This record gives sequence, structure tokens and C-alpha cells, in this order.
Amino acid sequence: MGPEALDRGLAYGDGLFETMRAHRGTLPWWPRHRARLTAGATRLGITMPEDARLDAALGDAVAEAQQRFGGEATIKLILTRGVGARGYAPPPAIKPSLIFTTSEAPSVGDDPLRVDVLDLRLAVQPALAGMKHLNRLEQVLGAREAAERGLDDGLMADADGFLTCSTRANLFAHLDGRWITPPLDRAGVAGVARGVLLDAWSPPGGLHVMPLPMAVLPRVDALLLSNAVRGILPVGRCGARALDPRPVGFAEARAALAASHPAFRES
Amino acid sequence: MGPEALDRGLAYGDGLFETMRAHRGTLPWWPRHRARLTAGATRLGITMPEDARLDAALGDAVAEAQQRFGGEATIKLILTRGVGARGYAPPPAIKPSLIFTTSEAPSVGDDPLRVDVLDLRLAVQPALAGMKHLNRLEQVLGAREAAERGLDDGLMADADGFLTCSTRANLFAHLDGRWITPPLDRAGVAGVARGVLLDAWSPPGGLHVMPLPMAVLPRVDALLLSNAVRGILPVGRCGARALDPRPVGFAEARAALAASHPAFRES
Repeated sequence: MGPEALDRGLAYGDGLFETMRAHRGTLPWWPRHRARLTAGATRLGITMPEDARLDAALGDAVAEAQQRFGGEATIKLILTRGVGARGYAPPPAIKPSLIFTTSEAPSVGDDPLRVDVLDLRLAVQPALAGMKHLNRLEQVLGAREAAERGLDDGLMADADGFLTCSTRANLFAHLDGRWITPPLDRAGVAGVARGVLLDAWSPPGGLHVMPLPMAVLPRVDALLLSNAVRGILPVGRCGARALDPRPVGFAEARAALAASHPAFRES
Repeated sequence: MGPEALDRGLAYGDGLFETMRAHRGTLPWWPRHRARLTAGATRLGITMPEDARLDAALGDAVAEAQQRFGGEATIKLILTRGVGARGYAPPPAIKPSLIFTTSEAPSVGDDPLRVDVLDLRLAVQPALAGMKHLNRLEQVLGAREAAERGLDDGLMADADGFLTCSTRANLFAHLDGRWITPPLDRAGVAGVARGVLLDAWSPPGGLHVMPLPMAVLPRVDALLLSNAVRGILPVGRCGARALDPRPVGFAEARAALAASHPAFRES
């Protein structure tokens, strides 16, 4: 019955997180992670930790990651509103909780993934969309369904039938000669790697943020998934359909991530 | 960086909770709380703690509550999937975490509440509806909006415009001579006090579970809120409209709760 039991992160999922790739004692995408964290904290009304506190804790985590796991590691940051009394209403002034954990870097294979559209739909909630907040039961249930169906990951459509993301990555679909990634203002998380790709990837036909109805999936000839820990992941199969795992623009997408983050140079 | 940081309750809100009224060293509604907890754990695929472990922890919490707060107290139980590695997919077999906290009983005033319909809508998610799970950011944001607007509580409609609950209670509306409480299969939490009322309250005109569109609110002549800690709360104002805080059936509703739980006898 320690104070952790009263942390609003545990009680209500009242917080945010970032999962980050560390590389040789550095964290090159930190400015993007920090910007997303700050934007989420502003939307939820969570106080950001002071810069000195955040920088010191981050430095400790990077050092620990390097000591424990060597040059490549994963660092997870959890920011919660803090420890408070019972009740949903946010207390006026509490100290946010800042928790770092380190783990090994994922083994990023190049085997194309087998995916399919999950039966579970994402709820539409504009007030929470885009943020990497701690309310992740939909992703837990989606990952469970994907595992039960023998998939490497599952594509998630929202309640209105628009493809949004996978359980743990952002989605890019090649359709009619152009790349499309769904908007994230009604569901989903605005991924950091997706942000890098939007800034730095210019595939033939262009990269467009636009809704992707499930109905167009049979006409999609390639899919890619992205996240900040694994980079770009090729998709070789969606349901019964084989997809080209090395589609047009793929090499340029990898090059764009590699130019932005040295951890992705070797992949 | 202790194990708590890796508890899936904190990481993803991957768990459930119950907030319960304790009375003179007893917890009369425990069978209902336990049934809801078990139903939620089954839906989420969370392992229930063994009976002996649950009973022992509950006994300790009840004793602690009585020692710290006397005859009337509040006990909160959190059950999470447990401590696991990173990643959304539930590990096959982990030990669930069971956390109890105790606090004083709320001061249950009889002042009629001032409420209004919040701007924030509840997302529609049948896969999570009805459960008292740990993903509560909508309630946090709703409670913040209610506080900012000077309300005692806020009524929450779902994305389709159906009134569902308040930020912390179930909702009963008196319309056309009968009492209505919304179904909770698309959003909201199936409250224990609501369950008692459905079983034991037979107001004139009856109590009906049926959808309650926002559009009918101007014709509603009374509202009541219920939860397992505070019992039945009268509503005196909804937006600009004054409502009868002691409507037909109110005394019988209180009597039904009091007959079921001695903590509500005096109110």
C-alpha cells in the first residue's frame, strides 16, 4: 500500500509514455519524443517535469541502458500526473511522476510481417487521439487477438471503418501509385518515426495524409509499418493476399530514417 | 525503476478496480463487486487471484480501514494483469497484482447536485463497455471539465449522443412517468449500486433500461445518480433547469439501497 498505489498513472492511466531507441549512449530522436510528450501533457493538463529533472533522469537512463545493454537499447519513459487522493478530478498542483525503464533493443528482423485487419475496432475519441497516453487496453486486446490468430501484428480500423494503425506501429499503404498514411485526429498515436517519414520521405507519387477506408484494402498493393523502436517494417502478407515486401519507395523510406537516426543505418 | 514500473496496470491501464464502501468491519456488497471484477477479468483474459489470496488481502484491508477510519470507510481494490516485459501482448502466464488502499468514507451530503451535460463525449467501445477497467482518461477529462464549469458532476453522453452516466456515477432519469437508466454495452461502467437498484427498486411506472438520447433531456423532470460509495445522490439542477430533488420513487430507491447495505441506512 505504498504511494505507488495512489499514483494516478496506475489508478486511471492518467499519464503519457514514450518508447525510444537508444544508440551508443545517445538518443537522437529525443527532441521529437519530448515535443510529443509536451504536447500530450498540455492537452491533458499534466505538469511537465522541470527541464533539469527531466534531463537528469534521461541522462541516467541513457547511461544505464548503455551499461546494461551496450550500444543498442530501448528506453521507456512514463510521465504521470502524480500521486493524488481518490477521485477522477485532477488535483490543482501535484508533482508529476517520471519513471524510466531500460531494456534491450528489439531484434529487428527483415522478415516481412504477416498481418490482417483485426475484428477489434478502435473507439473514436478526438479528445485522446494522437497522444501516446497510458490508456492502452485496446492495444492489449488487439495484440491478444493478433497472437491468437497467428499474426505478427494486427491492423486496426476505427469504429467508422477507417484503417488507422497496427497494434504497435503506424501504417503506410501504397494505393493507386502513391503512399497514404491515415490521419490520427480520431484514433491512434502520432508516431515519431511517422513524423520523420512525413518530413523526410518523398516517394514517387508522394506521401499523403488521408483517410484509408477498409474497403480500399483489396486495392492496396503494399503496406509498411513504422515505429520509433523498430523503424520501418515490411509487410509480406495481409490476410490471404501476398504483398510486395520491397515496394517502390521502400529503400528511400529506410534511407530517410537512417539519415535521421544512426540506429537505423544498418537495417 | 522497481518492478512497479513494469506492472501492466501502470504501463497500459491493463487491469480493473473496485471502489467499495466498508461499514463496521464488513463489506456487504462484496459479492457484487467480486462478481463484476470476475466478469471483467474474464473479458480481458486477466487471471483472477486465488480465492485464499483475495480473501486474505480483503480481510486485511477491511481491518485496516476500520482501524484507521472507524466504522465507515472506503476501500479500493486494483487488480492488474501483473508485471510483465515490454509489449502490448499479454504474457501467457503472469501473476496478477492485487493492491488495496483504504480511505475515509465520503461525506455524503444531501444537498442536491448541480450537473450539466459535458462537452466531452464518451467513445463507443463495446469491447470495454460496462467494465470498471483502469483506462479512465475520459473520466479524468470529464471531471476536469465539470470542475472548470463549477458543476458538482457532469453528465456524459456517448459519441452517438446517448446519455450514459456521470463522471463517477450511474444515471437515472424520470421521463413520461417512468424511470430510465441507460444500457452500458457501448460505454460506461455497470455500477454495483445500479445493480442493486435494478434488482430491488420498483418505482411507480417502473424502472427501465433503455437508451436515453440527449434530445429528451428537456423533458426529463428528475435525475438521480448512484454509486457504490455514495449511494443515491439527488440532482437539483441540470444546466439552467431546476429539477425536483425529491422526485417520485426517490424514498423507495434510498430504502432499497438501505435494505441492501446498512451503510446507507442513515442517509
